[in-house]
Amino acid sequence: MLCKERPISGFTVRFANDDKTVQVRPGSLIVDAIQQAGLEVNIPCGGQGRCGRCAVIVEQGQARRRSTVRLSPQDIEEGYALACQTVIESDLTVTIPPQEKIERRLKTDKTAAKIALPFPYDCERDQPLHKVFLHIEPPNLADNTDDLSRVQRELARRHKLDSITTDLPVVRTLARTLRAADWEVTAVLEAPLVANGAAHLIALEPGDQTRNLWGAAIDIGTTTVTVYLVDLLSGEVKEIAADYNGQIARGEDVISRIIYATKENGLQDLTNLVTGTINRLLAQACRRQSIEPTQVYRLAVVGNSTMIHLLLGLPPEPIRLTPYITTANFPPGVRAHEIGISANPQAMVDCLPGVASFMGADITAGVLSSELDQTDKLTLFMDIGTNGEMVLGTAEWLVSCACSAGPAFEGAGVEHGMRATLGAIEEVWVNNDTFEPTYRVIGNEKPTGICGSGLISLLAELFITGVMDRAGNLKLDLGSPRVRLGPHGPEYVVAWANEAADGQDIALTKVDVDNLLRAKAAIYAGFSVLVKSVGLSFDDVEQVLIGGSFGQYINVEKAIQIGLLPDMAWDRFHYLGNTAARGAYMALLNSDARQRIADIARRMTYIELCADNSFTEEFMAALFLPHTDAARFPSVADMMAQQA
Amino acid sequence: MLCKERPISGFTVRFANDDKTVQVRPGSLIVDAIQQAGLEVNIPCGGQGRCGRCAVIVEQGQARRRSTVRLSPQDIEEGYALACQTVIESDLTVTIPPQEKIERRLKTDKTAAKIALPFPYDCERDQPLHKVFLHIEPPNLADNTDDLSRVQRELARRHKLDSITTDLPVVRTLARTLRAADWEVTAVLEAPLVANGAAHLIALEPGDQTRNLWGAAIDIGTTTVTVYLVDLLSGEVKEIAADYNGQIARGEDVISRIIYATKENGLQDLTNLVTGTINRLLAQACRRQSIEPTQVYRLAVVGNSTMIHLLLGLPPEPIRLTPYITTANFPPGVRAHEIGISANPQAMVDCLPGVASFMGADITAGVLSSELDQTDKLTLFMDIGTNGEMVLGTAEWLVSCACSAGPAFEGAGVEHGMRATLGAIEEVWVNNDTFEPTYRVIGNEKPTGICGSGLISLLAELFITGVMDRAGNLKLDLGSPRVRLGPHGPEYVVAWANEAADGQDIALTKVDVDNLLRAKAAIYAGFSVLVKSVGLSFDDVEQVLIGGSFGQYINVEKAIQIGLLPDMAWDRFHYLGNTAARGAYMALLNSDARQRIADIARRMTYIELCADNSFTEEFMAALFLPHTDAARFPSVADMMAQQA
Repeated sequence: MLCKERPISGFTVRFANDDKTVQVRPGSLIVDAIQQAGLEVNIPCGGQGRCGRCAVIVEQGQARRRSTVRLSPQDIEEGYALACQTVIESDLTVTIPPQEKIERRLKTDKTAAKIALPFPYDCERDQPLHKVFLHIEPPNLADNTDDLSRVQRELARRHKLDSITTDLPVVRTLARTLRAADWEVTAVLEAPLVANGAAHLIALEPGDQTRNLWGAAIDIGTTTVTVYLVDLLSGEVKEIAADYNGQIARGEDVISRIIYATKENGLQDLTNLVTGTINRLLAQACRRQSIEPTQVYRLAVVGNSTMIHLLLGLPPEPIRLTPYITTANFPPGVRAHEIGISANPQAMVDCLPGVASFMGADITAGVLSSELDQTDKLTLFMDIGTNGEMVLGTAEWLVSCACSAGPAFEGAGVEHGMRATLGAIEEVWVNNDTFEPTYRVIGNEKPTGICGSGLISLLAELFITGVMDRAGNLKLDLGSPRVRLGPHGPEYVVAWANEAADGQDIALTKVDVDNLLRAKAAIYAGFSVLVKSVGLSFDDVEQVLIGGSFGQYINVEKAIQIGLLPDMAWDRFHYLGNTAARGAYMALLNSDARQRIADIARRMTYIELCADNSFTEEFMAALFLPHTDAARFPSVADMMAQQA
Repeated sequence: MLCKERPISGFTVRFANDDKTVQVRPGSLIVDAIQQAGLEVNIPCGGQGRCGRCAVIVEQGQARRRSTVRLSPQDIEEGYALACQTVIESDLTVTIPPQEKIERRLKTDKTAAKIALPFPYDCERDQPLHKVFLHIEPPNLADNTDDLSRVQRELARRHKLDSITTDLPVVRTLARTLRAADWEVTAVLEAPLVANGAAHLIALEPGDQTRNLWGAAIDIGTTTVTVYLVDLLSGEVKEIAADYNGQIARGEDVISRIIYATKENGLQDLTNLVTGTINRLLAQACRRQSIEPTQVYRLAVVGNSTMIHLLLGLPPEPIRLTPYITTANFPPGVRAHEIGISANPQAMVDCLPGVASFMGADITAGVLSSELDQTDKLTLFMDIGTNGEMVLGTAEWLVSCACSAGPAFEGAGVEHGMRATLGAIEEVWVNNDTFEPTYRVIGNEKPTGICGSGLISLLAELFITGVMDRAGNLKLDLGSPRVRLGPHGPEYVVAWANEAADGQDIALTKVDVDNLLRAKAAIYAGFSVLVKSVGLSFDDVEQVLIGGSFGQYINVEKAIQIGLLPDMAWDRFHYLGNTAARGAYMALLNSDARQRIADIARRMTYIELCADNSFTEEFMAALFLPHTDAARFPSVADMMAQQA
């Protein structure tokens, strides 16, 4: 008993925040001490040092980290160590941080960018939209001036705004609004488009409405539509609403949408579907702020060129036919009512400019938002959505290409795929020995499906733990009930029916795996061709800026393990969140930013991969995990060697 | 026998163009000689010297004209004499002109103004609309410039037209038009609205379409809509189409339309009805020229303010409620598609400016067309339609008023009333003795009904011949089957069923008479108040210019006999035809003319008769034939005295 209580060469480990102390044998891992103390720590990867979930803080004493794979230099300095990978070498004082804290610290984890003001903003100075409160003299027999002239007269008299112009739909509202509001109204005005031009009256609201002014930035993805509701007085994003693009029902990628658009009424149908989605999201966001969508007076819209064509009702056929021509890369401004958007009917909808058929405004906005157009560093900007677009360059030059990744990473086209929303499995760890998974669900609910980051994570884990071979074949002979033959071939069950929200097994099938492999291969091949096109290699790239609504959830390590991202030092990768929406938001706030996007669109060179044989070669070579040429992924090779 | 063949003191009358000679007794009338020769001449008024239909030319010899009531000094100089009123005083040589010639010469008769070019016109110089043929370079993989930029590039390169702007509906057509036309297209461009502005692309037509360019001038009357189809290359009116305004089914005057507009969907219904009428007329005119309505690229529209409000979908209620305010006297320009006009969707529809609720663009256009705004003579301009509007002034000043005449003079609101079209009785003569009518039908067909000029003519005849008393009561005791008690009270049958096109008696009822009396009283009262308002009398008025689609058919003498027009010398009255449509046509051709209308609208003073008691008094006094105060109509009193 003495031996047990005071073992020779044993160490004392105290858990500071739990007020417990245990004695351990030399050579023990911190995870052993934690279990001995009856405390809990997550080890979803089965103690392989891969997930970083078991990170603890060594407050005092000596410990040897066998792996620091999940830890940054700063983490190490602050005492972080992975419990499953750290050998106790003296008496220790250890703190087990709350799990949430760990998740926030893990540098390769989901880091949804907070929507901060991108620059100092002053509504009066920056915003072309203004409201003016008017007290208009009511008419009488001695002064039978017409309604419109009364409004114009008051704006000229009190606000020095001469020869205001307006449009029919506004004039249609004047008589009733003026009388219902007893001649006290708020004029909503757009600044002149040209110097010495006339301001344009776009609406008249009853009463004094000068204390609110709303706009929206909209990113139309092939798969996901995102709406930012923006308070144009403060410049702040007040609400974000996102949902699948209603067009998905008519085809999952841009090519199938374009083909659908050539059918009778197909174009109109697609236009209606996307405006339906936008209107639903706008209504949702407005409801949360207790305003009406008709109070939204300006919208900046980005999307790939096909999405913009379908929104505007432009026939998209020439986009998919050589030589791949858009109708307009710089679409004309339109009023909301012209395209069925349920903001204020006269709200200006500004579809930002793109570059080519497969290099749209989502990317020019992304470049703006990433500030690639103003940096000295050689930067690779990428936006991974249904399409993968990449831009390489500096403030001096910009070259770009695009590849069709398909919607797999957005959770579509995968049997149990879903968007990164409540109930989505966003991260998976597979135990090396048991092949049992551990997963994290957004909102800590019962899982409904797997989102993009979850799919990448799952694919990487299945590969690293040997459940899947390099070609993506699931091994049915592992003796695990998780790997089985399903109706669509081999599949891996992530969650059993009794754990799942809708009482059905959640599994990844071989068909899903093949979709995911094609998606990642297309993206990697794009990078590769782009970098080579300017005679450079990945090593020359100083930073990789990852945008896109999906990009923000990618785990770099996992993405490298499956060969989606090139094998570069993790600290060169930066997540920027939804750069497309953010670029639209910037353009909505400020005309300089709007001008920068136009400049970016004008000076960006676009490489057409469809006309490039080297792309096909790169794509075929990238259909393996992580790649046919394992030498391109040394860090993955190292890890595989460690596992083996 | 000798006596008979060579009567003592007899005269020989030779009919030059018929090669006949007769001998007549001294004191004979030329009409006696005509009848004696077995020749024919029209004497619809029964030989009372009122109709002027029996005019002949006395080539040689002496004759005494007992009346020259229908003849101008020039007519007399040329030898014209009324056969029924001219006494043979020597041997004569007489020519009986063809009846058509007489009709053309009768100075107070229908004189539909020919639509001549109002001023020298040069399309290149005067027209803001231009076509440019473009041969565009097709795209290829080396030049993937978008469609819109290709068009813009070509316009800049070859035609020095920089930074062309356009609208979404045009952009929607680009891809298909360019490819279908094999990149050879015609750009339809509007000149910049402001100096140094950009030209605006409103359409792209396949192939070379530079040899045609169409516009339309449209006059929307409460009762009648008129469309001029204009060749904008030559400036000529190529077609005129007119029909009842489809809104008549919802009320005959502006007030009932305004009331209808306040009902649910009432405004939309009225808008649809008038655009339906316009579109039908436009299609009709275009069909005759073998063009499509979509080839019409500019429209100038006039109408009273209510008509313009209903066309544009502006709620008209405040027009009829004191203080009678329009939404906009200067409506904004709209594109045809915005208001459902089936011209080219992007055709600019320019609704010309008006002055007040009851002084619309039909009158400003009429003033332009009459050149009242540029004359030194004190001029009264009037437009008689469903409303009677009058403008008094010179180049220095303009004062106006309006009264509601109702649609009676346009043939509506009268049981057998109709528009002045084929089958309409346009002129009636009633025999002094038999009370039998003679009438003239447009197109010499069987009559279908009576148009406005026919109604005025009939009313005057019934009064002059004593079929009707001063209060408009039909005398049932004349012993004529023409005057009878019908289902709506006393009525006068103009055409028996067997003469009429649809086999029914065509009659004028007491109800019709009362409607016509109210209409003429309102117009006369308006004149009276207007002239008095500036301290003048009718004698000061140097000329009366009569416009309006109905005005062109008024017979001045008849109109004076019923007290519709003031009793002034006939040569002070001038018919200008449809001045509203002509003013719109002028504005369509030339921007100076367009500017003049705006100036007219800005400087015209409007007197609101609804707020003027003297109008009611004048109106009540004018409800008699010709007026309560017979002294105001000395010429009518003279004629009545002659008849008695």
